[in-house]
Amino acid sequence: MPDRVTLVEVGPRDGLQNEKGQISAADKCTLIDRLGAAGLPVIEAGAFVSPKWVPQMADTAQVLAGLTRRPGVRYPVLVPNDKGYAAARAANVDEIAVFAAASETFSQKNINCSIAESLERFAPVMAAAKADGVKVRGYVSCVAGCPYEGAIAHKAVIHVTRALLEMGCFEVSLGDTIGVGTPARIRALLKDIKAELPVAKLAAHFHDTYGQAVANLTVALDEGIRTFDSSVGGLGGCPYAPGAGGNVATEDVVYMLNGAGVDTGVNLDEVVKIAWWVSHQLGREPVSKVAKAKKAVCSL
Amino acid sequence: MPDRVTLVEVGPRDGLQNEKGQISAADKCTLIDRLGAAGLPVIEAGAFVSPKWVPQMADTAQVLAGLTRRPGVRYPVLVPNDKGYAAARAANVDEIAVFAAASETFSQKNINCSIAESLERFAPVMAAAKADGVKVRGYVSCVAGCPYEGAIAHKAVIHVTRALLEMGCFEVSLGDTIGVGTPARIRALLKDIKAELPVAKLAAHFHDTYGQAVANLTVALDEGIRTFDSSVGGLGGCPYAPGAGGNVATEDVVYMLNGAGVDTGVNLDEVVKIAWWVSHQLGREPVSKVAKAKKAVCSL
Repeated sequence: MPDRVTLVEVGPRDGLQNEKGQISAADKCTLIDRLGAAGLPVIEAGAFVSPKWVPQMADTAQVLAGLTRRPGVRYPVLVPNDKGYAAARAANVDEIAVFAAASETFSQKNINCSIAESLERFAPVMAAAKADGVKVRGYVSCVAGCPYEGAIAHKAVIHVTRALLEMGCFEVSLGDTIGVGTPARIRALLKDIKAELPVAKLAAHFHDTYGQAVANLTVALDEGIRTFDSSVGGLGGCPYAPGAGGNVATEDVVYMLNGAGVDTGVNLDEVVKIAWWVSHQLGREPVSKVAKAKKAVCSL
Repeated sequence: MPDRVTLVEVGPRDGLQNEKGQISAADKCTLIDRLGAAGLPVIEAGAFVSPKWVPQMADTAQVLAGLTRRPGVRYPVLVPNDKGYAAARAANVDEIAVFAAASETFSQKNINCSIAESLERFAPVMAAAKADGVKVRGYVSCVAGCPYEGAIAHKAVIHVTRALLEMGCFEVSLGDTIGVGTPARIRALLKDIKAELPVAKLAAHFHDTYGQAVANLTVALDEGIRTFDSSVGGLGGCPYAPGAGGNVATEDVVYMLNGAGVDTGVNLDEVVKIAWWVSHQLGREPVSKVAKAKKAVCSL
């Protein structure tokens, strides 16, 4: 077991982007500030994407202007192209994330271009980021399966992950976007990836659609992954929309890691309080088991 | 990975016993019959315990009389003492389960006697069962923690597990009754137990209170456990009673095992249908992630 693991909080972006209900920019700032105060070292703060396609992220500039940046905490934002990159820089962003898919069909349906075209689109962004000293994180979606293609070949995952690393991403987060991965599949996938790419540059991003996320994370930890994406309250999955499983909950992950004696720097009870608070703003209860079990720590 | 794992379905007993809502004896028979038809090889059908303390199980004789016993399927019932044993035999039961705790305080609060006294109480039951050719399964509760004592020493778990095996139990199910175990703790516990007792005679029984059950089960599988208790729909945990986490859901477990290529003989879609049906009888949705994600297989 490692002494320490880094959690990348994706609730304010990947979580809220997939929620039916929405919260105000001011509440997003409160959410991000509270997550920073709770010890989360990296908080994905928003995305400069088309407000036509992703209206939930239309207020990202406002959120970035309104939050209080804590020394030592990183606030990356998602950027799809050079227009988004310019907006990010105008908002004083010093870390961005780009995203590609391991599935051709998903790439076409999600961002309307092939995997190769998506990588080409990132090239000027990567060059500008390098010149500006901006760090770039990569995401690869559908690593354990695609809603259109089903199983995805490991070599397809390796191909796009390698491309992102070679383009200059300091880290690539492997996303089980639809949560179909099981521990056996994740272990086999990671073993194949590790044979070709440095595990220290990989992160894992699990969704709990089929209840496997904490188990998958346990296996990924065992395979040497040391950075995990998670979402406070399991944001991204709404209990009133069965089937729409969300990101693995930050508090469920911290509970697991605390049990293993792995330090995350995160205050579990504070995260539980934030989970209840943000779920309350969304008009519902958190989906996370730990948040439910530890409700007593909240005054709500 | 093993080729095959045995699932012990505990929804009709441990699940319903801990639900606020209740279903009729006729519905319990339907539940059990459908579970058998879906391929569950062992279905805990009820308990002959005091109806004063456990009113949910007061109709066990009626349930046993009304269900259709499938050849090859086992229908154990829980029995606390020789009075319960006599009732079980009158109901043509040929497999029973007895339960003890790894925590002294839990034993006192739950069954009003010490661990040693509970074992003494089982002695005449075990003797009668042996004479009658009735198989006896043992349960040990609180193996990963106690609501009153907190952490439980591994040697306490080993002590009571060994006692149950020596008394004649063919198998002992290790229960994380309050779901506080994490993969690291479960692995360490099982390694210590395996050093002293035969793993082939052990089963694992996880609750998902803190979202760790599938992860714990993954680790237990890796440590050689081949029999797991689970509950259709995650019965035992009600979404309207936050904090009361239930048994790990049969469908979440089957999904994980299918992903590992481990055969259980269980039809996943049928279990999902049963999960929705029984939850509907209870006036709510299933808590299980797989049941929610696969809702489309149901006509409900």
